[in-house]
Amino acid sequence: MLNFASDYIAGAHPAILKKLEETNMELLPGYGTDHYTAQAKEKIKNACHCQDADVYFLVGGTQTNSTIIGAMLADYEGVVSADTGHINAHEAGAVEYTGHKVLTIPGHDGKIDAKELKDYIAGFYGDDNYTHMVFPGMVYISYPTEYGTIYSKDEMEQIHAICKQYDIPLFVDGARLGYGLASKESDLTLETLAANCDVFYIGGTKVGALFGEAVVFTHANAPKHFYTMTKQHGAMLAKGWLTGLQYDVLFTDDLYMQVSRHAIEMAEKLKEILKKHGMNFYLESPTNQQFVIIEDEKARQLEKHVVTSFWEKYDETHTVIRFATAWSTTEENLEALNQVLAQL
Amino acid sequence: MLNFASDYIAGAHPAILKKLEETNMELLPGYGTDHYTAQAKEKIKNACHCQDADVYFLVGGTQTNSTIIGAMLADYEGVVSADTGHINAHEAGAVEYTGHKVLTIPGHDGKIDAKELKDYIAGFYGDDNYTHMVFPGMVYISYPTEYGTIYSKDEMEQIHAICKQYDIPLFVDGARLGYGLASKESDLTLETLAANCDVFYIGGTKVGALFGEAVVFTHANAPKHFYTMTKQHGAMLAKGWLTGLQYDVLFTDDLYMQVSRHAIEMAEKLKEILKKHGMNFYLESPTNQQFVIIEDEKARQLEKHVVTSFWEKYDETHTVIRFATAWSTTEENLEALNQVLAQL
Amino acid sequence: MLNFASDYIAGAHPAILKKLEETNMELLPGYGTDHYTAQAKEKIKNACHCQDADVYFLVGGTQTNSTIIGAMLADYEGVVSADTGHINAHEAGAVEYTGHKVLTIPGHDGKIDAKELKDYIAGFYGDDNYTHMVFPGMVYISYPTEYGTIYSKDEMEQIHAICKQYDIPLFVDGARLGYGLASKESDLTLETLAANCDVFYIGGTKVGALFGEAVVFTHANAPKHFYTMTKQHGAMLAKGWLTGLQYDVLFTDDLYMQVSRHAIEMAEKLKEILKKHGMNFYLESPTNQQFVIIEDEKARQLEKHVVTSFWEKYDETHTVIRFATAWSTTEENLEALNQVLAQL
Amino acid sequence: MLNFASDYIAGAHPAILKKLEETNMELLPGYGTDHYTAQAKEKIKNACHCQDADVYFLVGGTQTNSTIIGAMLADYEGVVSADTGHINAHEAGAVEYTGHKVLTIPGHDGKIDAKELKDYIAGFYGDDNYTHMVFPGMVYISYPTEYGTIYSKDEMEQIHAICKQYDIPLFVDGARLGYGLASKESDLTLETLAANCDVFYIGGTKVGALFGEAVVFTHANAPKHFYTMTKQHGAMLAKGWLTGLQYDVLFTDDLYMQVSRHAIEMAEKLKEILKKHGMNFYLESPTNQQFVIIEDEKARQLEKHVVTSFWEKYDETHTVIRFATAWSTTEENLEALNQVLAQL
Repeated sequence: MLNFASDYIAGAHPAILKKLEETNMELLPGYGTDHYTAQAKEKIKNACHCQDADVYFLVGGTQTNSTIIGAMLADYEGVVSADTGHINAHEAGAVEYTGHKVLTIPGHDGKIDAKELKDYIAGFYGDDNYTHMVFPGMVYISYPTEYGTIYSKDEMEQIHAICKQYDIPLFVDGARLGYGLASKESDLTLETLAANCDVFYIGGTKVGALFGEAVVFTHANAPKHFYTMTKQHGAMLAKGWLTGLQYDVLFTDDLYMQVSRHAIEMAEKLKEILKKHGMNFYLESPTNQQFVIIEDEKARQLEKHVVTSFWEKYDETHTVIRFATAWSTTEENLEALNQVLAQL
Repeated sequence: MLNFASDYIAGAHPAILKKLEETNMELLPGYGTDHYTAQAKEKIKNACHCQDADVYFLVGGTQTNSTIIGAMLADYEGVVSADTGHINAHEAGAVEYTGHKVLTIPGHDGKIDAKELKDYIAGFYGDDNYTHMVFPGMVYISYPTEYGTIYSKDEMEQIHAICKQYDIPLFVDGARLGYGLASKESDLTLETLAANCDVFYIGGTKVGALFGEAVVFTHANAPKHFYTMTKQHGAMLAKGWLTGLQYDVLFTDDLYMQVSRHAIEMAEKLKEILKKHGMNFYLESPTNQQFVIIEDEKARQLEKHVVTSFWEKYDETHTVIRFATAWSTTEENLEALNQVLAQL
Repeated sequence: MLNFASDYIAGAHPAILKKLEETNMELLPGYGTDHYTAQAKEKIKNACHCQDADVYFLVGGTQTNSTIIGAMLADYEGVVSADTGHINAHEAGAVEYTGHKVLTIPGHDGKIDAKELKDYIAGFYGDDNYTHMVFPGMVYISYPTEYGTIYSKDEMEQIHAICKQYDIPLFVDGARLGYGLASKESDLTLETLAANCDVFYIGGTKVGALFGEAVVFTHANAPKHFYTMTKQHGAMLAKGWLTGLQYDVLFTDDLYMQVSRHAIEMAEKLKEILKKHGMNFYLESPTNQQFVIIEDEKARQLEKHVVTSFWEKYDETHTVIRFATAWSTTEENLEALNQVLAQL
Repeated sequence: MLNFASDYIAGAHPAILKKLEETNMELLPGYGTDHYTAQAKEKIKNACHCQDADVYFLVGGTQTNSTIIGAMLADYEGVVSADTGHINAHEAGAVEYTGHKVLTIPGHDGKIDAKELKDYIAGFYGDDNYTHMVFPGMVYISYPTEYGTIYSKDEMEQIHAICKQYDIPLFVDGARLGYGLASKESDLTLETLAANCDVFYIGGTKVGALFGEAVVFTHANAPKHFYTMTKQHGAMLAKGWLTGLQYDVLFTDDLYMQVSRHAIEMAEKLKEILKKHGMNFYLESPTNQQFVIIEDEKARQLEKHVVTSFWEKYDETHTVIRFATAWSTTEENLEALNQVLAQL
């Protein structure tokens, strides 16, 4: 069956599997103290042009979000997020489980607005009762967002400036980072992204790896003993090299961006196919996730041939569904989808 | 200086102080195991017509909210509240500190709407991804609300019916309970309130006591070892009888409702005075809190003579301020306010 | 019935009750922003000779312990305590509820040993795996201890020196502080205690107040936004002045130490009476708590006339029970006990 | 360099790598909803002879421990463990981070004693103050223990009987389960282990898999919405099939026990070699971990040729080090070690 449900439906890029095989019986020290991990960290620092970055490898997105947020916030602080932010909506309360509130401001197609952010924080400090309230202690955005949209460099700079003004870190959830940076509409690079936030991660799970998220504290600003806190959060892999060497591969010969660009090319073609067949887009997304509004009856026909993701009910008779491409999507997949849609 | 800032600006009803003196050197067992506490519990059960209720005495409102919510929710659950609910806005993240999310729905002058509550919960279970989300595990409302408004018996029944349908408890924050029940617009009593929720508390701090909140689990439904959990939350007083005997006094000869009715009478007169002097009400409140929109310049004049509470900015040149009456408000206080406003 | 069960069996010193009455209808701002609280803080700073101390008033001991510990520790840190420490044994896991481990070292009649403390911390950093372990982030001692024993000035200096060496705070639980300082064996004063720790509290609940614990951060070292964290922990009283003015009274004309000395005199007489009647002491305590080993049969006789506290089983046929004196103990109480024991 | 540091120094059994390759481009649903995961669960239930078991796949040991413990305990409960238990000593406070205390009893070569466990729990309920203490809500043991020792079937039955008497679950940390069951001294099987506890896990990370721990709730007793709680703990893998199919392979043709037996054979030979060269054993271990007491000078010689694990300081001049075998250990490794030791 055709599957466009998400970008985590296939294993890993063949180069990664090959590396896993080659190194399978190499006896290595645990917990990320191996040389592959060290090497991967160097490559990432170079790619980000951040020589004083602190790099850590964690396993999955929710884990990475709650570990970073829990570690960086003081007890009296919460994290500001779009109401549609993944941490607010789809992580089963993992942030709250660490004792911190998610402070929501409106999401606009998944993005927060710099002006609204500023008003929110200024409003907080302007409230006579703010010492009885949760302090905004960090700003969380995702790049690309949960709706596939991306911030421009200018928007990032504005948001980061507000964070700097209030001396709170800006955290970028990059679970799909490659697909954002590779977007034809993106004016950001790893380097400019790193320059405009305090911590972000380079998603591996959805961008060519079996699993793994590479956390980059951009200016030697990792919380003290972050390593121990990853252990406390159950986020430290005994065979830490497994993540390290996947990133070593992804950051060799620009593979990470290469597979990302492929997914974006596939997404561009996907959009054309969807348009050709009269699909109604829920919003304009320049990355690998495409959301369409579909009649429920048509959705039932479609799901006999193609797996997509339910996103939300649109109205009584329509549903928003998601089609995603990934590093693993092929021209054949798209052509097959084209055939299916032609006959729907 | 005149003070209408809140309902917690004076000590305790004289009958309570008298009782504290009389019993001062009576040697009593600690942690609420004394006979005054036992007696107060009986009186409360009788007043609520809930013979199988479980009654506990805690110290303050935020503490009571987070202890109850933390104790009643499973790890995967959050508490549904109006966005303006005290637990969401003004308790410094005490609920999140216990690991649970506050799930917000819109507040309408402080109240939640039964239909919107139903849609929210039905929407949750209708979402394909609900197992990745925080379960609605409890509904929190305040009576009266943070804006002085109250639910009708009919509204309470509707909300409670939804909770029963989904098998989750309805929790009523009654920090100002007396002022709600004594309102001329209320059609609820302690008995009918208790019959329409699973746990509520009878606020003492704001209604005649030095401090104290009497928690009533209405049908023998206190969480297992709730006593130990109050200890764990730092909510157990060594000299537990201090709270017990305050409630013993408040629930003798209907004192609790008597002082509440007095505050409401004072509030009615306050409203007349405010109206007479052309004050613009932010909303219609039938209880002891009155919110007016005032020009900033006028507010500055007023605060030379009267303490009120800043509530929120209304627009560039206006502010919402709160006037509150209480069991301790006198006719003299009101007349003095009348004089001040006349000269403003 | 005679009652020597604890030091929290009576209300408050009459001077406190009198003050509560006098100020009952004085309208005051909430949350500890009143002038009585400000004044009490000044008096405490003077009494401690700590002009740059940060002083806060909380309600009870368990609450104070968990709020301070939760606020001062980083996520990766735990608090070192004697295994018999109150936080480890009798607070229902309140510290762990804040996410932190209690790291135990042996208690010797309730006290920790400086050498063992040093070995513990040095051993931690000497362990190859320490980054997988909970960091010792604070040292907790009680003065007097749960067994009535006290540290000498020299012992305090040694313990504090170790804390300074490792740059972690020393926290002294002073729930019964007055009874320690007033002990004839104590060579400490409020001033020298304050000079030898980073945070401590002056217990009120057990030493003359209705309730209240005065927290002293000795050198302007309160955690950032500690005020908000007391709110988050449910430890902030709406009528904050109630605690403030109790301490205002206790720190006027040396009342705190005066009532403490009275309790110690009563304890000295109690010891004589117990000895006279052949009671077997479990340990030598120089403060207001006395522990005796009693045959179970005799204990059953005793409890018909006197309330004491069960402490622990000593062996198959004996139990350790506690007799406590307090500010409220009278010569008459002791004489009555004498009579009872004579006839046992 | 020779490496006997641990049992997590190599990748995965070749059959697992092969399966990963074969399925790499098979498009699968996420979060463990795939057919490999379903199939693996069935195979595990069959292997355990537990048709009504609930099986979940998590990623690593610390994560699995804290997720299970956090999910199964009520707020007022802690988990009883040997003081040497992994959760108490080497998980960076992950259990406390979930709000729960680890209640320690003495470990005897890593094992708890049934009689001491019974005395501890009976003592708890026999204490007059137990409602102020942390309830024993679960018993945690590891099989094999952190010192390589194992419980006999008889010992397991005794411990389980005590748990049943107090109606609390028995949880077996099986991070190295295969190496315990394969031990020549073991009289347990997967079936009899499952029959004598309430939840355990079948360690994969150390026994042939790249990563993964298979949690078995033995009698349909998984906590409600455990799936959501794994998400909340950051323990849910997007590509859940990666764990599922590793277990599918391990539970095909008895591979799990086969590789475990191999490691035990290697351990037996290792012991002979160590003995032959006069090594002094710290304790008698029948599983894959062997602890020897070595002179510090000799240790420095050894570490030029062989990686082992520092365990603890034995005395001023000696250290305890660990040699571990695993599924990946070869005869050649052992022979090389033999050579090294001969020349030391």
